[in-house]
Amino acid sequence: AMVAGAVERAVTSAALPAGVYGLLQSREPDISVALVRHPAIKAVGFTGSLCAGRALYDAAAARPYPIPVYAEMGSINPVVVLSDALITRTDAIAQGLSQSMILGVGQFCTQPGVVMIEGDATPFTAALVDALKSVESGTMLTSAISKNYQNGLDRLQSIPGVEPALRKDVDPGPGGSQAAAAVLTCGEETFLNHPELSDEVFGPATLIVSCKDRESVVRLVGELPGQLTATVHGTDTDMTSASTLLEVMGQIAGRLIINGFPTGVEVCNAMHHGGPYPATTEVRSTSVGTAAIARYARPLCYQNFSAALLPRELMNANPLGILRLVDDKRTREPIA
Amino acid sequence: AMVAGAVERAVTSAALPAGVYGLLQSREPDISVALVRHPAIKAVGFTGSLCAGRALYDAAAARPYPIPVYAEMGSINPVVVLSDALITRTDAIAQGLSQSMILGVGQFCTQPGVVMIEGDATPFTAALVDALKSVESGTMLTSAISKNYQNGLDRLQSIPGVEPALRKDVDPGPGGSQAAAAVLTCGEETFLNHPELSDEVFGPATLIVSCKDRESVVRLVGELPGQLTATVHGTDTDMTSASTLLEVMGQIAGRLIINGFPTGVEVCNAMHHGGPYPATTEVRSTSVGTAAIARYARPLCYQNFSAALLPRELMNANPLGILRLVDDKRTREPIA
Repeated sequence: AMVAGAVERAVTSAALPAGVYGLLQSREPDISVALVRHPAIKAVGFTGSLCAGRALYDAAAARPYPIPVYAEMGSINPVVVLSDALITRTDAIAQGLSQSMILGVGQFCTQPGVVMIEGDATPFTAALVDALKSVESGTMLTSAISKNYQNGLDRLQSIPGVEPALRKDVDPGPGGSQAAAAVLTCGEETFLNHPELSDEVFGPATLIVSCKDRESVVRLVGELPGQLTATVHGTDTDMTSASTLLEVMGQIAGRLIINGFPTGVEVCNAMHHGGPYPATTEVRSTSVGTAAIARYARPLCYQNFSAALLPRELMNANPLGILRLVDDKRTREPIA
Repeated sequence: AMVAGAVERAVTSAALPAGVYGLLQSREPDISVALVRHPAIKAVGFTGSLCAGRALYDAAAARPYPIPVYAEMGSINPVVVLSDALITRTDAIAQGLSQSMILGVGQFCTQPGVVMIEGDATPFTAALVDALKSVESGTMLTSAISKNYQNGLDRLQSIPGVEPALRKDVDPGPGGSQAAAAVLTCGEETFLNHPELSDEVFGPATLIVSCKDRESVVRLVGELPGQLTATVHGTDTDMTSASTLLEVMGQIAGRLIINGFPTGVEVCNAMHHGGPYPATTEVRSTSVGTAAIARYARPLCYQNFSAALLPRELMNANPLGILRLVDDKRTREPIA
């Protein structure tokens, strides 16, 4: 509400049309669905859970006149550690991963929720647990989110073959929203046999999966549902044989990262913050970066308009001096 | 099937992967729905009826992993004739309109199915009927399409207030697919009170609507569902007061035409052949022109890749010499 107040003051001082921005707060999900169904609404942006995003998508698709829904939903943002990097860089990767995991108490959409290890994961798991063990518990956004996080961990741990490597008992505190980082482990067969291990657990947890070889890693990544990001850690030696892995990562994710971490989304022209369903409901669109403006624009073609009736962007004289595509050439020149 | 054979030979001679193109023919609509539901299918293009397009859209939206559907469906492509043009150019406009109406026996998606007249439509209707009266009947694609066309005309004519100005009895011929041009008329109140008058009748027919003034024209255009095109005929005098009309046309259509006709879709960068639902299921996309390639592409972001691992389009050296956006500037220069 404080941000909304600032936006509203900016709207007034910039003399934008009244009503160009509005804030409607409610605990009632039906309010959102009613908004999505309203004939005056032409597009929907959303960030939140898969369940809520899908409900809005379904409501929009069932309208007499369907509209686009840009819902950003669940993503477990796989991180792959290849064998040579595992030998030479385990501590550094575990240290970086621990920071990415717990940023904002794990409440970033790019939080790394699964790590595929090419080889025996034991030393890496030990290093990660070591990096996390002195981290204090943190305050999540709401007590419901904190409770969902604990329930999600319980759900994963109840699957045969999934073992906790780090799970602390945390006093939920007076607000009921304290949470601590957690690390679970399993083998590749367990992961493949339990698709529910690919469901997002929103919070500072990650699941480490041991894979016997590169082929297993490629297979596991290829079986993942759509993701916002996919990351690989590898030395030059590792990467000489990584083309198949990179291709498969490109099939499932919207952003590929080498030797980095998925949290930290730069707002720039090159950013694509999106990915195949269920990461989003619109694989061609980004929610961060300059291309996001295309969500709320659509093409309009002007045929045989005189200069006086054209928008200034399209006038032959090019009064705005913008770069235009004219007869297959990019140019700022006026049209003779 | 003949075209498919040519495409398949081209695929072979260009050494493209086998199966990149396929033709599946059936009279069974379930085949199309089964294709749309198949997990390997990632996007759907379609041209045809509103009913079939909506069925495919609904099937795609109901998938566990929804996919985009680019369906191009019904459009009546309104043509507006403003009062000064009506006085000075009735014969020329009626002549041009008649040709646009009957092109391909009216089976173009941009066929002009409704004409809004600013003023008394009687002389314009007479001129249009005169231009059409010597036109021979034509052969439609199938007998089912021809029968649907006759049924559609019957349906419109059964609405009180709709009068036929031209409707010939046509011998359907041995193939049962002969059809003739038809002109119907009604007043603005009839049009506003019967939304079914905005439903497409696929074939060489148009409905002429008399409007008492500019405000009525704007209101009627604004009430139309989404269209591929919207056209206005006006003299310089007419167009000095047409900004509201052009704005409303831009709200309902994907392509705006002044003093022309909607048939004739140039394949070029500037073409947008699309529009709000029900003209299409994807208002941001075009089925004609270079931008159509974006239907089957999606963005992918590469972060911290070495040159050897990047696609050639993104290498610092710019080996392809393509125009790129680097640090907010369009350039063909390599990145230092």
